[in-house]
Amino acid sequence: MTNKDARTPASTQLSSDGEQSAPRGEAGESIGWHKAYVEGSRPDLRVPVRQVHLTNGQSVTLYDTSGPYTDPLVETDVRRGLSPLRENWIIARGDTEEYAGRPVRPEDDGIKHTSPRGGLRNLDAVFPGRPRQPRRGRGGAVTQLAYARRGEITPEMEFVAVRENVAPEVVREEIAAGRAVLPANVNHPEIEPMIIGKRFLVKVNANIGNSAVTSSIEEEVEKMTWATRWGADTVMDLSTGRNIHTTREWVLRNSPVPIGTVPLYQALEKVDGRAEELTWEIYKDTVIEQAEQGVDYMTVHAGVRLAYVPLTANRKTGIVSRGGSIMAAWCLAHHQESFLYENFEELCEILAAYDVTYSLGDGLRPGSIADANDAAQFAELRTLGELNRIAQRFDVQTMIEGPGHVPMHKIKENIDLQQEICDEAPFYTLGPLTTDVAPAYDHITSGIGAAMIAWWGTAMLCYVTPKEHLGLPNRDDVKTGVITYKIAAHAADLAKGHPGAQEWDDALSDARFEFRWEDQFNLALDPDTAREFHDETLPAEPAKTAHFCSMCGPKFCSMKISQSITERFGGKAADGVSAEEVAEGMLQKSKEFAASGNRVYLPLAE
Amino acid sequence: MTNKDARTPASTQLSSDGEQSAPRGEAGESIGWHKAYVEGSRPDLRVPVRQVHLTNGQSVTLYDTSGPYTDPLVETDVRRGLSPLRENWIIARGDTEEYAGRPVRPEDDGIKHTSPRGGLRNLDAVFPGRPRQPRRGRGGAVTQLAYARRGEITPEMEFVAVRENVAPEVVREEIAAGRAVLPANVNHPEIEPMIIGKRFLVKVNANIGNSAVTSSIEEEVEKMTWATRWGADTVMDLSTGRNIHTTREWVLRNSPVPIGTVPLYQALEKVDGRAEELTWEIYKDTVIEQAEQGVDYMTVHAGVRLAYVPLTANRKTGIVSRGGSIMAAWCLAHHQESFLYENFEELCEILAAYDVTYSLGDGLRPGSIADANDAAQFAELRTLGELNRIAQRFDVQTMIEGPGHVPMHKIKENIDLQQEICDEAPFYTLGPLTTDVAPAYDHITSGIGAAMIAWWGTAMLCYVTPKEHLGLPNRDDVKTGVITYKIAAHAADLAKGHPGAQEWDDALSDARFEFRWEDQFNLALDPDTAREFHDETLPAEPAKTAHFCSMCGPKFCSMKISQSITERFGGKAADGVSAEEVAEGMLQKSKEFAASGNRVYLPLAE
Repeated sequence: MTNKDARTPASTQLSSDGEQSAPRGEAGESIGWHKAYVEGSRPDLRVPVRQVHLTNGQSVTLYDTSGPYTDPLVETDVRRGLSPLRENWIIARGDTEEYAGRPVRPEDDGIKHTSPRGGLRNLDAVFPGRPRQPRRGRGGAVTQLAYARRGEITPEMEFVAVRENVAPEVVREEIAAGRAVLPANVNHPEIEPMIIGKRFLVKVNANIGNSAVTSSIEEEVEKMTWATRWGADTVMDLSTGRNIHTTREWVLRNSPVPIGTVPLYQALEKVDGRAEELTWEIYKDTVIEQAEQGVDYMTVHAGVRLAYVPLTANRKTGIVSRGGSIMAAWCLAHHQESFLYENFEELCEILAAYDVTYSLGDGLRPGSIADANDAAQFAELRTLGELNRIAQRFDVQTMIEGPGHVPMHKIKENIDLQQEICDEAPFYTLGPLTTDVAPAYDHITSGIGAAMIAWWGTAMLCYVTPKEHLGLPNRDDVKTGVITYKIAAHAADLAKGHPGAQEWDDALSDARFEFRWEDQFNLALDPDTAREFHDETLPAEPAKTAHFCSMCGPKFCSMKISQSITERFGGKAADGVSAEEVAEGMLQKSKEFAASGNRVYLPLAE
Repeated sequence: MTNKDARTPASTQLSSDGEQSAPRGEAGESIGWHKAYVEGSRPDLRVPVRQVHLTNGQSVTLYDTSGPYTDPLVETDVRRGLSPLRENWIIARGDTEEYAGRPVRPEDDGIKHTSPRGGLRNLDAVFPGRPRQPRRGRGGAVTQLAYARRGEITPEMEFVAVRENVAPEVVREEIAAGRAVLPANVNHPEIEPMIIGKRFLVKVNANIGNSAVTSSIEEEVEKMTWATRWGADTVMDLSTGRNIHTTREWVLRNSPVPIGTVPLYQALEKVDGRAEELTWEIYKDTVIEQAEQGVDYMTVHAGVRLAYVPLTANRKTGIVSRGGSIMAAWCLAHHQESFLYENFEELCEILAAYDVTYSLGDGLRPGSIADANDAAQFAELRTLGELNRIAQRFDVQTMIEGPGHVPMHKIKENIDLQQEICDEAPFYTLGPLTTDVAPAYDHITSGIGAAMIAWWGTAMLCYVTPKEHLGLPNRDDVKTGVITYKIAAHAADLAKGHPGAQEWDDALSDARFEFRWEDQFNLALDPDTAREFHDETLPAEPAKTAHFCSMCGPKFCSMKISQSITERFGGKAADGVSAEEVAEGMLQKSKEFAASGNRVYLPLAE
């Protein structure tokens, strides 16, 4: 399939329907943007960007996460998967080898011999793409952290340097210091490398995943490409139902962004939902299974220690993290320290052999305003700091997950403490939600907290959709969640003074001031909805070039008045010149204005 | 019309359709909430509240702005208007008198003798309610500020004291100090008094208004009641098209909340859109016209001084305030100081005679990230501080309008400077929008800034709808804008530690933890959407009482696990008790847990 229309992602339907709507832009109409590539120091290092073409002849280059799906010159086919962009880089390092790998078992897909419903529901859904063997390190860590510490700038590091418009050495330094992670499993060569760290653009994760209640493989692959189309920098597959292994395979092979998981969810499926039957061996086997598939980062709830569980007993909402509650139940059942905590060093060795990045889960995060920043939360955070130092010893890249529900005045304490306790390891937060009272709008209650915590140093934000607390997100919810969080992330980039961040705002504001409507749409985070909203009030095509908009109508336009002021005084009132000084020249200007008939409005149409 | 269903507002259609959907709750089904009243020191002082009835027998009392429309015992009729709740209070003060008033002229509705389209489009739309004469002060100021300074606690002050759950004296003090306003024109006796000030709950304003392009009287009245139904504390009628006087009359007579306007818009209509033809006399006549109708607060752009206009010339987006650009055009055309600035003292005298509250407009607010906190903005702010002191001399209540587009790191400077320069007069801000790149989502870009600036002291937030910059908001947009801003306001109330604010969150979180789905919906800011979202994934009625939700499915529920922990340890791990101390008792508990079969999950349905 060739993606002729660069503005919409390729269909990811597993069944090809043979139909495609006529692409806009073929009949000579100018396409608002196209996929372009910035080349690095070698021909196989091509960094994708979104090039927006303005009607004034200029262009604006934006970060792009949508993968090959938006490139009309690339043929994509979800049955074959994306091409393995990084494969040669990984092989060239010579520190990994292919091996037979762990055999895939029915229970990996949630199918038990005792189950009345045997077999995959869709056996033909098994991923049909190129056969592959898993790869792992021959000996020591094969992680970007290990390379960075050795002073090596990998192609992956150069890729993100180009992407972020910084020097490669900055990337290397931040990774080496543990202040940034570049999640890139050696078994996920399809990804376009990206970096998560406070000195870089704030990133956004979108969660997908089927559950026991609903959803299918097709939907999850579709949600993944849909989420990256709107700007998700990583995707977490949180599937908990059947076909968990197979769904993940489809997602990984087709994902241009790093994929995260929570291995505990799958491990629990393997013991039929009985937390107390979990063992380190089952968990470890699941981690290896997922590492061999290519999962780039894994949430590990190793900070939920036995002694912390009672700290949650008098909470308003107890333990709201699924992983946290599973581990708490296990600890209680056995009255033993968490097997994740106890076996953390061995886990580090496994992750180091595939370059899987830790996302140390906050199993005791607050689930309500009342529980924010309490003893349970901060006890776990201190343990996460301790685990981070162990992971660093093993050269395993690590980020730390954060809350949750936190009122605005307690957000800064959270990030400051995390940065202090965890040696500035990247913080990866869910929201936080700044109030509990708005179910159905928790993308907004949390978008507020997300923007603030990102300004103060959070490196990646986990999106929240409007369905949070209520149901499973559909396609529209995924989009709304991603867009809301891209807003929060970009607002934070601006507040942090990230180099170049404001250029985007400036380009859009210029277009707005000059009534370049099409440019305004094409520069928008969501061009489709911006265009649709405009057309609702003023549907006619000429209205898109009109020098007014529907809020004020033709004769009442402040932008128009302003333009006239700019024409008269532009360049005269530079910063530092006092109003009084400028006023002197105004009398003359005023006379000119009067001579022109004092008309700052367009003539009325009537 | 009797509103039998207290959960939905009375229809405000001008034409009665005679039909009403069968009210829920009549067949013995419990209604989730009802309108109640808290009585003050006198029988005619009844403060409306929303009483939410929980399934556990408790109830939660919430602030309510929806007016008599949600009271099934009150008959409302938009053709008659609301009953004049405050009339006796105003008369009893004995300091006002009725008078003939200014005759209503065709041009008040935008109809000129030169206009080819003579006459009202809907002549029968003239408000048919009870005949009334305007009222004004006999001599000195009849403002709540004047009374407060004299040490008087008016019924209006007591009303808001009950509403805010504070002592009446606090209300009086804050008004007397100019730190709060209680907008209540003597010609708008229909309102339920409310207060705007940083020591009180953060308020939200919703804008409505027809324009030259679209919209009708019916729609505007409907939007007003719709906005207050969802929590708007005030409504601004920003109509600019025809029927401007008549639309306002309908809105005022039916509004339970204070109404604000920008008289300059109507004045400009009277001179056919030619800013240079505006005069102090036309403006003053318009202010009196609107004061006689009962407008409670007026935006006055008196801070846009001649000398500041050139400061905007090199801005990215010039002057984006309509009022600001009109005044700038006038100043330029005449090369004269603004007639609003020059005649400000006379304007104070007029406003004092009706108790119209100033909302000193920020005509030079930034319209883009690039222009935030610039010389033009802060020059005007200093003038607003000066004007505030003049208004205080005349006992005119005053608030100050604020930006605009401001990146997060510049928001605090804005509010701090405003509070300093304007002697802590209530700040009333539009957003601010924290980025320019998301047209169609500016309720969110601005909701972020709104929550932050409100936390830091802004008293009222002017909502922004998804249509901002693109088109006119429809009914759905109004609701989305109000809900988003109620979230921002409540998040700020929490962050400010407003007494009682967290009770709402706690009640909802308790309901969530205990799987009381109906309570969760009824306590939500938007019960309808929360219920609808839940039902999308799990539509069956039994699911609303199920002890799990669609995110995790029946066997994977963290809340369920947590409840089991709470049952086992609840009350044992009080704050201050170390994890180690508690752990001691855990072995025993663990044994009990094992004895119970280690089951923390519900049995699987299959």
